[in-house]
Amino acid sequence: MHFSIASPGSELDAALQNRIDNKTKPPGALGQLEQLALQIGRIQQTLTPGFSRPHLLVFAGDHGAARAGVSAFPQDVTWQMVENFLAGGAAINVFARHNGLALKVIDAGVAHDFGQRARLLDAKIAPGTRNYLEQPAMSAAECAAALAKGAEIVRSLADQGCNVVGFGEMGIGNTAAASLITHALTGTPLIDCIGRGTGLDDAGLTRKRELLAQAARRAALPAKADARKVLAEFGGFEIVMMTGAMLAAAERGMTLLIDGFIVTSALLAAARIEPAIRDYCIFCHRSAEPGHVAQLNDLQAAPLIDLGLRLGEGTGAALAWPLVNAAVAFLNEMASFEAAGVSEKI
Amino acid sequence: MHFSIASPGSELDAALQNRIDNKTKPPGALGQLEQLALQIGRIQQTLTPGFSRPHLLVFAGDHGAARAGVSAFPQDVTWQMVENFLAGGAAINVFARHNGLALKVIDAGVAHDFGQRARLLDAKIAPGTRNYLEQPAMSAAECAAALAKGAEIVRSLADQGCNVVGFGEMGIGNTAAASLITHALTGTPLIDCIGRGTGLDDAGLTRKRELLAQAARRAALPAKADARKVLAEFGGFEIVMMTGAMLAAAERGMTLLIDGFIVTSALLAAARIEPAIRDYCIFCHRSAEPGHVAQLNDLQAAPLIDLGLRLGEGTGAALAWPLVNAAVAFLNEMASFEAAGVSEKI
Repeated sequence: MHFSIASPGSELDAALQNRIDNKTKPPGALGQLEQLALQIGRIQQTLTPGFSRPHLLVFAGDHGAARAGVSAFPQDVTWQMVENFLAGGAAINVFARHNGLALKVIDAGVAHDFGQRARLLDAKIAPGTRNYLEQPAMSAAECAAALAKGAEIVRSLADQGCNVVGFGEMGIGNTAAASLITHALTGTPLIDCIGRGTGLDDAGLTRKRELLAQAARRAALPAKADARKVLAEFGGFEIVMMTGAMLAAAERGMTLLIDGFIVTSALLAAARIEPAIRDYCIFCHRSAEPGHVAQLNDLQAAPLIDLGLRLGEGTGAALAWPLVNAAVAFLNEMASFEAAGVSEKI
Repeated sequence: MHFSIASPGSELDAALQNRIDNKTKPPGALGQLEQLALQIGRIQQTLTPGFSRPHLLVFAGDHGAARAGVSAFPQDVTWQMVENFLAGGAAINVFARHNGLALKVIDAGVAHDFGQRARLLDAKIAPGTRNYLEQPAMSAAECAAALAKGAEIVRSLADQGCNVVGFGEMGIGNTAAASLITHALTGTPLIDCIGRGTGLDDAGLTRKRELLAQAARRAALPAKADARKVLAEFGGFEIVMMTGAMLAAAERGMTLLIDGFIVTSALLAAARIEPAIRDYCIFCHRSAEPGHVAQLNDLQAAPLIDLGLRLGEGTGAALAWPLVNAAVAFLNEMASFEAAGVSEKI
C-alpha cells in the first residue's frame, strides 16, 4: 500500500499568528495552546479551524510472545478488556464519553472468537501474532494487510466528515513489541526502551529485558531497517493497523491525537514511511514508560499532559482532547484587542 | 472574621484506595488522577464523590502601585478586561463555557465606575488600593471587609448547592503584589519571587525589581509576619477577597480549584490563617511566573498541567477542570475486575 503525505503549507502562518497575537491577552500568555492553535490552523489551512465528528479508535491484538512472560497479566486479558470496552466499563469508555469522543473498538488480531458483535469492528488479520522470540511476528503479506485495513477504516471515517482521530490500543504484551520497534527504528539502546508495562516487578522486568534482547538478536535487523520489515518482525497487528490508519489520516489532512508509548511506536514506523506525518500529530501525554522518552526525542515532541499515566487504551489522548478543543476555541471565540476596546501593551 | 477549618478525616482512605485499585486497570496506571480521586473522595467523605454547580469566580481589583510602572499594561486594562468578561470575549469566558463552569465576575476594587450591571457582582471595597511604595495598600478594616465579602460570596454559592469552586483574577499590577506576598510569607528571596508578569522587557523587569525591593523595605515586615498584615500591606482587594472566599470554601467542605501565581498568593495567606485548607485544594496548573515555584514548594503541590500559561483570569483552573472531572468519573463509572470478568495480575 502506497501513502503520500505532504506537509501542510505555511502560507497562512503569519495571518494565524497575527490572529493569535491580537486576542485579548498578553502575547504568548496561552503558552503551548498558542502553538497548538497555529498547528491546527495550518493543518486545516484556515484561520478558523474546527473539528467535526471526533473519533477515538482502539485497536486490539494479541502477541505470540505474551505467553513467554513479557507481561504481568495473562493473555486472556486482551479479549476480556475488549468485552469491557464493548460493555462501556473501561477507562477509555469513561473518558471518551465525558470528553465527547466517539469510540470505535477494532479487533485487529485478538486470539479470541467474539462472534458477530454490533459495537466491534472485525478487522482480524489472524488470532494473534506469532512468537517473535522464534520467528517474525507476521508475514510481509499480513503486515501489508494490516496497514491497508487501518487505512480503510480511517478513510471511511474521513468520508463521513470526521477530521480528527485519536489512537488507542489494547494488547497484553504490546509494550514489549513497542520497545523492540522503538529500539530498531531509533537506534536507542534496547534497555532504555524497556519498562514495567502494566506493572512488572523487578524479577519480571529482568526477564522481559532478557527475552527482548533474545528477540532482537534473533531478528538481527540492520541499522535503519525498513519500517515495514520492523513492524512485521515484532508486530502486533494492533500496532501495524494503527500505522496504516495514521498514514491514511495524515494523507486526508486530518488531525491525529497521539497517545502514549505503544501508539507512538506505531507513529515512529509511520514517520519512517512518510516523515511529513509528524506535522499532523498532536502529542497528548507523556507516558510513564521509559521508552517514550526516546520516541518523543526522535519526533521532537512535547506532550500536553504529564500525569504519570501508563494505562494505554488511548486514555492520554482522550484526557488531553479538551485542551486541543480549547486551543481551537480561543482562536475562534476570543475577542481581539480592537473589538473589545482593550488597550495594548505600553 | 474567624474561620475554622478541619482536615477531612482519613477514615475512608482505605476503602477509597481499594475501590480505585479494583478498577479494570493495572494498579496506579491512572497516575495523578488516582491521587486526585482519593483526595476528592476524602474531601467529600464518600466513596462516590460528585460535583454540583461548579463555579469559577474571577475577582478584579486595581493596584495603587500600578501607575508607578510595575506592569507592561496601563491600569485601564483592568476595567476594560472586566468589560470583556461581561461581554464573553476573554479567554476565561471561552474556557469556562466549553468546560461547563459557571463564571462569576466580582468587582473587588476596580478603579472604575461600572454602574449597575446585571452580570457583575459589585463587592467594591474601594476604587483601587493605595500605593504600597508609600503606605500600606489598605487599612486593617478594609482588609477585614474584603475577607468577609469573599467569604459571604462563597457561602451564598454553597447554600445554593455548589460544592466546587475555581479561583481567577484580573488586576493590572497584581503579579507585583503576589511577589511581595510570596516573599513575605515564605521567606523566599524577593528576586526569586519576581517575574515578567504580562510581558515586561528586560528594562521593565529591572524596574519592577527595584520598585518591589523599595516596597519591601518601606513595609519592613518581620519574618513570619501575620498573614492579614501582609495582605493589608500589599493588597490588592482581589487577592484578599479571594483569600476570604477560599477560607469559607474549605470551611464548607468544598473542593477548591487553584489557578496560578496570583491565586496561589491568596492561598498562601489563607494557609497561614488555617493550614488545613491545603487538603481541599487541587493545584490546576504550573504558571510560567518564576515565583510560582516557591509557592508550590511551600504548599508541597504538584499541579495537573504545565502548558507555559501566564494569563491568569483562572484560565489554568478552567483548563484543568476536565481532568478533575475525569478523576471522579473513573471512580464512579469504571467497572471493577470482578464485575467485568477481567483477570487480575499474575
